[in-house]
Amino acid sequence: MKPIKALGIATMLNEKVLDVFYFQISESDQNKNSITKLDEDAYSKLADLKDLKIAENKEIIEVNLAEDKKIEDVPTAFLKLHLISLKQFKPNELNLDNIFNVLETLAWTSKGPMMLNDAQKELLVSKANGSNFKINSVDKFPPLTDYIIPEKVRIADTARVRLGAYLGEGTTVMHAGFVNFNAGTEGPNMIEGRVSSKVFLSKGSDLGGGASTMGTLSGGNDQVVSIGENSLVGANSGVGISLGANCIVEAGLYLTAGSKVTLLDDENNELKTLKALELSGVSNMLFLRDSVSGKIIGKANNTNFSLNEILHVNN
Amino acid sequence: MKPIKALGIATMLNEKVLDVFYFQISESDQNKNSITKLDEDAYSKLADLKDLKIAENKEIIEVNLAEDKKIEDVPTAFLKLHLISLKQFKPNELNLDNIFNVLETLAWTSKGPMMLNDAQKELLVSKANGSNFKINSVDKFPPLTDYIIPEKVRIADTARVRLGAYLGEGTTVMHAGFVNFNAGTEGPNMIEGRVSSKVFLSKGSDLGGGASTMGTLSGGNDQVVSIGENSLVGANSGVGISLGANCIVEAGLYLTAGSKVTLLDDENNELKTLKALELSGVSNMLFLRDSVSGKIIGKANNTNFSLNEILHVNN
Amino acid sequence: MKPIKALGIATMLNEKVLDVFYFQISESDQNKNSITKLDEDAYSKLADLKDLKIAENKEIIEVNLAEDKKIEDVPTAFLKLHLISLKQFKPNELNLDNIFNVLETLAWTSKGPMMLNDAQKELLVSKANGSNFKINSVDKFPPLTDYIIPEKVRIADTARVRLGAYLGEGTTVMHAGFVNFNAGTEGPNMIEGRVSSKVFLSKGSDLGGGASTMGTLSGGNDQVVSIGENSLVGANSGVGISLGANCIVEAGLYLTAGSKVTLLDDENNELKTLKALELSGVSNMLFLRDSVSGKIIGKANNTNFSLNEILHVNN
Repeated sequence: MKPIKALGIATMLNEKVLDVFYFQISESDQNKNSITKLDEDAYSKLADLKDLKIAENKEIIEVNLAEDKKIEDVPTAFLKLHLISLKQFKPNELNLDNIFNVLETLAWTSKGPMMLNDAQKELLVSKANGSNFKINSVDKFPPLTDYIIPEKVRIADTARVRLGAYLGEGTTVMHAGFVNFNAGTEGPNMIEGRVSSKVFLSKGSDLGGGASTMGTLSGGNDQVVSIGENSLVGANSGVGISLGANCIVEAGLYLTAGSKVTLLDDENNELKTLKALELSGVSNMLFLRDSVSGKIIGKANNTNFSLNEILHVNN
Repeated sequence: MKPIKALGIATMLNEKVLDVFYFQISESDQNKNSITKLDEDAYSKLADLKDLKIAENKEIIEVNLAEDKKIEDVPTAFLKLHLISLKQFKPNELNLDNIFNVLETLAWTSKGPMMLNDAQKELLVSKANGSNFKINSVDKFPPLTDYIIPEKVRIADTARVRLGAYLGEGTTVMHAGFVNFNAGTEGPNMIEGRVSSKVFLSKGSDLGGGASTMGTLSGGNDQVVSIGENSLVGANSGVGISLGANCIVEAGLYLTAGSKVTLLDDENNELKTLKALELSGVSNMLFLRDSVSGKIIGKANNTNFSLNEILHVNN
Repeated sequence: MKPIKALGIATMLNEKVLDVFYFQISESDQNKNSITKLDEDAYSKLADLKDLKIAENKEIIEVNLAEDKKIEDVPTAFLKLHLISLKQFKPNELNLDNIFNVLETLAWTSKGPMMLNDAQKELLVSKANGSNFKINSVDKFPPLTDYIIPEKVRIADTARVRLGAYLGEGTTVMHAGFVNFNAGTEGPNMIEGRVSSKVFLSKGSDLGGGASTMGTLSGGNDQVVSIGENSLVGANSGVGISLGANCIVEAGLYLTAGSKVTLLDDENNELKTLKALELSGVSNMLFLRDSVSGKIIGKANNTNFSLNEILHVNN
């Protein structure tokens, strides 16, 4: 990778870094990884921070990232998540190994990130004095829009997109949609289902309401799913295989890697039966469950799906 | 339509209207549409606003709506959404054409609505000084309860009901529920699934957890779905056709308009097979997928479904 | 039950209790139920409250709970919800009868709980002066983490877990997950689906994305569902029966109590067909819908499912 220099505001708990908000990312002239705290003289000259008051529990840090190694510290974890969400790297291009061990579970609150026991104490104080204290999430990963607002993207409920999501222009994530870190969309796309970690949708595709893309983190699946261009994954359906371009999965059909698919020709004659996995990534497929025989059918997709332009053009 | 006069508080960005909160709606004596800014003398006498401090970026506006035309401006868009949520009009009664073009994508934040680049700047400031700034949504439509709290309704997670939703008394929208603008319920109803734009449920019906009502905005469907009285759309099921009264769709079954339904008589003899679309709006139907033959079955519904009164009576 | 003494901070509206946050729970020497307001002299000596300012609309109360009767008042309702979430009682061990009648529907806001008409007035004021006022929920039950942050648990979106949920250590509730009151997990567990009231998952089990556990509050089902150890309820699937240990329900399959299940031996010979209800609670079962015949199949589960340790160990 080309070396990257990133300036960030870190939330500190004594010497521990809780999170980092990166406000400036540029090329670096360093050839190895480093993390440095800037002193007040150094950071007060930065254009971005000029005239800003820096809170006591904040530090300004400079991170140089030259080698894409396993993650060993919080600033690097947050930097890699930023780099994906800033669309400098696509999902699966950066090494995110060890991120679950490095990131602690924090309470993400109306007073910023904090340790769980501190948040429990704040609850007591706020209940007593009637002040406003809200815990939005107890998690290792914060929401994307606590850090980055991608351009020309709609996110109906920001709680449902993690930092580390890659959202291309023209993407709409509806209320039932979800995008994990290290996953995303090329854009434009309609996302009303769940985009699991490592999953990527190419432009023009629609993940219907409640639709599932099988992930590899839990549940025992080991196929990394991707969805090609102009495909439609119907409402309440799911895929455990990749789809090529111009595919349709019927609403309500869950196509696991092990599903047996009966292939039909254009006259609806049965050609053969094979595992869905063997059709992974094939374009122009229509998958449905025959409502008379109960068979899962695969055939040529002769209808062209396209996104409703009105929903995405003016994002 | 009878002419309507509405008084609202508009959030301004220079001369641009970002949103309008309407606090008084009455009959109008104007016979054409108009939008007027009130000056301080005029609005300081309004009973609702007396003793209230009006912020610098707020204007008080009077909107007269006499002709229900295509939407051309933000105040009219917000007024029509209010009128539906105030239950003065049912879904599909007002002309909402062009609303996606008129409404800009905004960041809906703890400091009110703002442009995305302003929100990104606020993020920087708040990360530096440790203040509380939260972006709840990046969308064209805000949540209903940022404007209107319907009586005798429960909404477990307010992020999931848009302004423009019509929620009848006794409606409960659970955490997995969702109600789009220009859609809703007569009440009482239990909503644990997704009510797409234009969809309406009559009283006594239950949309189960994760259940889908196929919309017409994306995904290629052109049937406007409605659900009759006392019907049950089972958990994780879905409908691409309308249901009449007293129908049940089995949990997990997605009935698209093109599904072939085998009709059975009361002795379970097969009568004929037809497309689900031909059964759209028919009452007293039970739809299920036979768990031995795999066929989608339609038959007379001989069990009566009714809502659990405890969950809705005391809303 | 052993008598319990609980000290709480109650939010008052005149003489009405809106909610109670319990900060200290211990054994009681009282043998009957009582609720007492403490005067300032009494509570100012409590270690927890020392140095805390108590707001005007707050009262400190002492509740003694010795008999587990039908719920008749708000402090007892909140105490029982706390006791479950503090894991002093498991779901279904406490008498929660009448809770829907006792708890009023409130607006849960950035200014605390309030009556709906007061919240509507606050909306007007905040829109006028541009202040921050947010209604997060309109419901009888508040979110768990407004009161209690369980240790070693992740909750990606706190709006989706109600007070009264029981979350064992190592539980992760993802964005599409939901846990109702009087329901929960032994831990560790992955919850990406909906845990209905009364449902309990034993350790090591995974409720996949969008998966449904059929509840008994609405929808007409009367089976209380539980999930045994190390079972996997696949994405977008559902269960209307209990599962024993080491079971798998295939992604996308909804197994209702009335589904007919064809049992196969290890050579895939059909043994017999029975109702799923007869298999409720049986261990080592694999349930799937045959993708060629459309039949729902039950057979011995010869693969062992286990949670991904990385996702749960470091919660």
